[in-house]
Amino acid sequence: MSHSTFGRLLRVTTFGESHGPALGVVLDGVPPRLDLDLHALQAQLDRRRPGASRFTTARKETDTVQALSGLYEGQTTGAPLCLVLHNRDARSDDYAAIKDLFRPGHADYTFLKKYGIRDHRGGGRASGRETAARVAAGAVARQLLAPLGVAVLGHVVEIAGIAAPASRPEDAEQSPVRCGDPIVAQRMEEAIDLARQDGDSVGGVVEVIARGVPAGWGDPVFGKLDALLALALMSIGAVKGVEIGDGFALTRMRGSQANDPMVPPDGFGSNHAGGTLGGISTGQEIVARCAVKPTSSIRQPQQTVDRTGKPAAISVGGRHDPCIAPRLVPVAEAMVALTLCDAWLAQRAVGGS
Amino acid sequence: MSHSTFGRLLRVTTFGESHGPALGVVLDGVPPRLDLDLHALQAQLDRRRPGASRFTTARKETDTVQALSGLYEGQTTGAPLCLVLHNRDARSDDYAAIKDLFRPGHADYTFLKKYGIRDHRGGGRASGRETAARVAAGAVARQLLAPLGVAVLGHVVEIAGIAAPASRPEDAEQSPVRCGDPIVAQRMEEAIDLARQDGDSVGGVVEVIARGVPAGWGDPVFGKLDALLALALMSIGAVKGVEIGDGFALTRMRGSQANDPMVPPDGFGSNHAGGTLGGISTGQEIVARCAVKPTSSIRQPQQTVDRTGKPAAISVGGRHDPCIAPRLVPVAEAMVALTLCDAWLAQRAVGGS
Amino acid sequence: MSHSTFGRLLRVTTFGESHGPALGVVLDGVPPRLDLDLHALQAQLDRRRPGASRFTTARKETDTVQALSGLYEGQTTGAPLCLVLHNRDARSDDYAAIKDLFRPGHADYTFLKKYGIRDHRGGGRASGRETAARVAAGAVARQLLAPLGVAVLGHVVEIAGIAAPASRPEDAEQSPVRCGDPIVAQRMEEAIDLARQDGDSVGGVVEVIARGVPAGWGDPVFGKLDALLALALMSIGAVKGVEIGDGFALTRMRGSQANDPMVPPDGFGSNHAGGTLGGISTGQEIVARCAVKPTSSIRQPQQTVDRTGKPAAISVGGRHDPCIAPRLVPVAEAMVALTLCDAWLAQRAVGGS
Amino acid sequence: MSHSTFGRLLRVTTFGESHGPALGVVLDGVPPRLDLDLHALQAQLDRRRPGASRFTTARKETDTVQALSGLYEGQTTGAPLCLVLHNRDARSDDYAAIKDLFRPGHADYTFLKKYGIRDHRGGGRASGRETAARVAAGAVARQLLAPLGVAVLGHVVEIAGIAAPASRPEDAEQSPVRCGDPIVAQRMEEAIDLARQDGDSVGGVVEVIARGVPAGWGDPVFGKLDALLALALMSIGAVKGVEIGDGFALTRMRGSQANDPMVPPDGFGSNHAGGTLGGISTGQEIVARCAVKPTSSIRQPQQTVDRTGKPAAISVGGRHDPCIAPRLVPVAEAMVALTLCDAWLAQRAVGGS
Repeated sequence: MSHSTFGRLLRVTTFGESHGPALGVVLDGVPPRLDLDLHALQAQLDRRRPGASRFTTARKETDTVQALSGLYEGQTTGAPLCLVLHNRDARSDDYAAIKDLFRPGHADYTFLKKYGIRDHRGGGRASGRETAARVAAGAVARQLLAPLGVAVLGHVVEIAGIAAPASRPEDAEQSPVRCGDPIVAQRMEEAIDLARQDGDSVGGVVEVIARGVPAGWGDPVFGKLDALLALALMSIGAVKGVEIGDGFALTRMRGSQANDPMVPPDGFGSNHAGGTLGGISTGQEIVARCAVKPTSSIRQPQQTVDRTGKPAAISVGGRHDPCIAPRLVPVAEAMVALTLCDAWLAQRAVGGS
Repeated sequence: MSHSTFGRLLRVTTFGESHGPALGVVLDGVPPRLDLDLHALQAQLDRRRPGASRFTTARKETDTVQALSGLYEGQTTGAPLCLVLHNRDARSDDYAAIKDLFRPGHADYTFLKKYGIRDHRGGGRASGRETAARVAAGAVARQLLAPLGVAVLGHVVEIAGIAAPASRPEDAEQSPVRCGDPIVAQRMEEAIDLARQDGDSVGGVVEVIARGVPAGWGDPVFGKLDALLALALMSIGAVKGVEIGDGFALTRMRGSQANDPMVPPDGFGSNHAGGTLGGISTGQEIVARCAVKPTSSIRQPQQTVDRTGKPAAISVGGRHDPCIAPRLVPVAEAMVALTLCDAWLAQRAVGGS
Repeated sequence: MSHSTFGRLLRVTTFGESHGPALGVVLDGVPPRLDLDLHALQAQLDRRRPGASRFTTARKETDTVQALSGLYEGQTTGAPLCLVLHNRDARSDDYAAIKDLFRPGHADYTFLKKYGIRDHRGGGRASGRETAARVAAGAVARQLLAPLGVAVLGHVVEIAGIAAPASRPEDAEQSPVRCGDPIVAQRMEEAIDLARQDGDSVGGVVEVIARGVPAGWGDPVFGKLDALLALALMSIGAVKGVEIGDGFALTRMRGSQANDPMVPPDGFGSNHAGGTLGGISTGQEIVARCAVKPTSSIRQPQQTVDRTGKPAAISVGGRHDPCIAPRLVPVAEAMVALTLCDAWLAQRAVGGS
Repeated sequence: MSHSTFGRLLRVTTFGESHGPALGVVLDGVPPRLDLDLHALQAQLDRRRPGASRFTTARKETDTVQALSGLYEGQTTGAPLCLVLHNRDARSDDYAAIKDLFRPGHADYTFLKKYGIRDHRGGGRASGRETAARVAAGAVARQLLAPLGVAVLGHVVEIAGIAAPASRPEDAEQSPVRCGDPIVAQRMEEAIDLARQDGDSVGGVVEVIARGVPAGWGDPVFGKLDALLALALMSIGAVKGVEIGDGFALTRMRGSQANDPMVPPDGFGSNHAGGTLGGISTGQEIVARCAVKPTSSIRQPQQTVDRTGKPAAISVGGRHDPCIAPRLVPVAEAMVALTLCDAWLAQRAVGGS
């Protein structure tokens, strides 16, 4: 039960390993008659693609997407849409040295304990490359949401402890670290460079904002929009924390500060809650943030063990980003878009819109 | 689609409103031949029950649980277990004044936008009373996990910004605020008293630790244990943030610090990851923390609107905890226990244990 | 994993055993603002209730339904609706003699093999009494479908090989065997009486017709309306066969006969297909039939074994219907109504109606 | 919500249209460390492949399967297995004439009503070609079941009303109509030839037998093995009826005949029930039969309408089997194998085997 499916009505199933023939995704439940813009979809993949800036791995993948099903004359038909990305620049030999070693911070040990077998090449199924399939799926979700006036935007708001509270998501794409505050972005770049020189890595915080979501999306109890967003974002490999709205900062406020007052006729005076109340959207911006741990693959030698339990030192070479947060932005956006699209369809089933 | 079911193999469906005849839960997929200890189950409910300390609402509910199905001579049979709690001290009149007002921080507005109707009495389905059903279900999960050596323990590690990094979960039950550091607990109590005197409320952080979880539980990709725990905890009404392991603090570490080194034969030198790698348990302690916002119901007057969109002032009287974190401990534990129990059954299906 | 939940958007979870404290059902996903008519719901339960005619068991159960949740001032709120029926006339002593014997045709042996434990009293979870919860749920589905112009009607079209091809479902309720052809119904009654005198039982065929279903309900591939109806009906204990439209008779036709020609503007010249093409409703009547095996509980002595594997003779006394087909009519209707209601909500999610 | 996923623990998602680039399937939840035999898998596809005998369509498809993911050195890893079949001999021009006509017996009209768009080329998603993906998935399930001693065998037991009660499934592959009684098979072939000469088609009955299934698989209530098999088989396009064991014939027996007596120590004296009691396997052979309607595509002119509602005559040329039952055998086997494999994993989760 490897649970590679996300969503209830828009069901997204990803498949593929880092060094297998291909990665891909099947989207089942896509509403019919969407003119799917494959160029826009490709543009999203290009945002996540390796090699796009000096801060990302040098692995060369064009990540050209191919649609195997679900389209007729460019339109969705209601049938499952299968999107495939073929792997090309997989250098499995880079990984021969670590075939029998467990890389710290990676899923090597746990996959072996769970399945009794592991595909060590490039991390196999646990590779960050799996997220390309999510970005492809998320690009479909974006196109479904756009006619409703819903847009999903992400940016990096912190790297290595350097916060950018004034970052504007609209400006993030102009920065190699995807921070929408050019001054702070410069300092973030320096921190990353420093870590790289040390054979080390740094972490960061990615924020995703969804605009135009009407009130009424999300379900009570276990289907709260907050909970589904938490699942969505925490399912990204490097993410170890999720906040909605002011999140942990709310725990240090009083109720009189934290509660968002309502203003006539049905607006709000603030948005500490991040656009949900009781797990249902309020009509305000949805705000979610996720904690991205420092890249686990580092050149510095680390202490580990091999498959037989013997101690070993490991230095993870290969091609790795010293900070994964900037490339995680389109992935986090994709997961938010998929979550919202699913909530929209669920709300249609209830009889709303 | 209100999505009141949690879990894939151990499926938990809660029902009931704050002021309806009863609350309850159906557990489907409970393994057979468990001698269900209803006293132990009741003891868990008593931990969450209102009126247990001066920091909790004065509402009097015995919360006596009744099993309607699924037992034969005290043992589970594999059939669905239905547990019911009858409401007794529901004072719906307390809520008449707010029938047409939207309480800030509550789900009043969003339920109405979603469903076109709302049960305003005590918050209806969005009431914290719904979590009593979760605690009952979680108590069953605890009993299923105990023979495997798995125990789930929670404590309050921060209230109103007052942190208790040295709190021991074993000592938490002796404190009215469920903090396992008596000195810090005293300061937390004072902060709560102060807020109450101001007609205000405070928030906090609850940490849950699971011990004895073997390596191999949890699934890759969308079924990561981190993701399922995030869903589980974020589905609790007052929770607006979730961390696994060091969570957001990891974003300010370097990879060389954040990676947990492995030590022979298959242990770890630290646990920054909180007991999971790649979404699968490592065999270490599972550590999850959640951000609890300050109680939304406060006596202080707040600005809001009524159903017609006219501005109004509101002071939420009734019986409310000035800080919900202590009572949330057994709820968070229950959600973690249910998540782990489900992961255990899933791992059995895969062929592991 | 006992899988007591049916449906994707309207999720129905039943619980309860024949001789436990209560049976019940939780309906999650009920659209809001339905004025639930509890009298009409009770009337459906009365149709299934034992003791209603000389052909049914003499067990006295009033089957009075109680709503524990999900209603506010008589209207559904979108929250889960829990309906409970308390057991009253459970005579567990009747079953003491068979505690260690496996009744032929019953689930005694298989439950024990599956779970290692069984509740032998009245069949436990495998009892026909479980279907009362389905009828209650189906009654809610009927009320949701009624405003759409969809009605679900069942009748007995064959008993003991005596067919009633001219039976009209509208007239079925006037007959104790629920056959809408009074002449044939008389012969069916005689066949049942004869079997009863022999300490034996007979089977039959129940047909359910749904009128007013618009074109477009049901999904392709695994979600075909035919397939979901087959699941729904075959999940009823005594049912061992299901047909849609002309079913098995189609296998003896040629394509030129079996194909339903279309007539302008978008009607059909016949309905051999039973109202679906490619698993999606055509706008014609939905026609489903199920094969009901003869009641397994018979007074005649039968050969069996006990729990230790020793041979034994068994005569199943107690209170049993010599033919279960008539009482199965409201159960089959309920399952069809639930299936259709779920398909309607799914079609709303797709963007249709 | 097109519902292209089957199964709970072994989740099978098919994608692809008759005339699109490719068909395929993703299997999620495949237990790890299976040495997948791709030749055996291809052999199953070859059984379903068009052009294999004079009774099947002349469309030339090699149906060569390619594994895109989920394997490492030939073994399953627990990751999703994606299998793809590229379409080669798609002659979309054959279908230009019927672009605006609704073929009787086909899903043309209903897909358009449901989705507002249809891919008319070769039936699009409703094409029988989709079942190639099921056969590929079923071949994986067979390989998972084989080490448990479970084998799934199908045969044609009736065509055009010509029954073969003595057919042996072991001998079926030697017959072009897949009937394991050579004398009757000859008569079936003649009936098919006759229909073909008339530009018409005939139907039949396919029986699938599963041997070696231990007692205890399948769930009570809605997860009955009977019900899941009914769903599985009725989800095949041409199937309009399903029976378990003696099915509809049981309705004409008395209880004393229909009940299978038990013989020491825990066997049965007969198998009218088809290997299940209360929806759970008994340890006997599982027996399921399905009614296959005559092929809808016939050369004979039929009455229909076009998209504007105007009457039209239609003669469906192209390449079609005059009787689909023989080619449906491997498809029905695949669906039974998938159902059983899923029930096996579910039983492991319960704690059985």
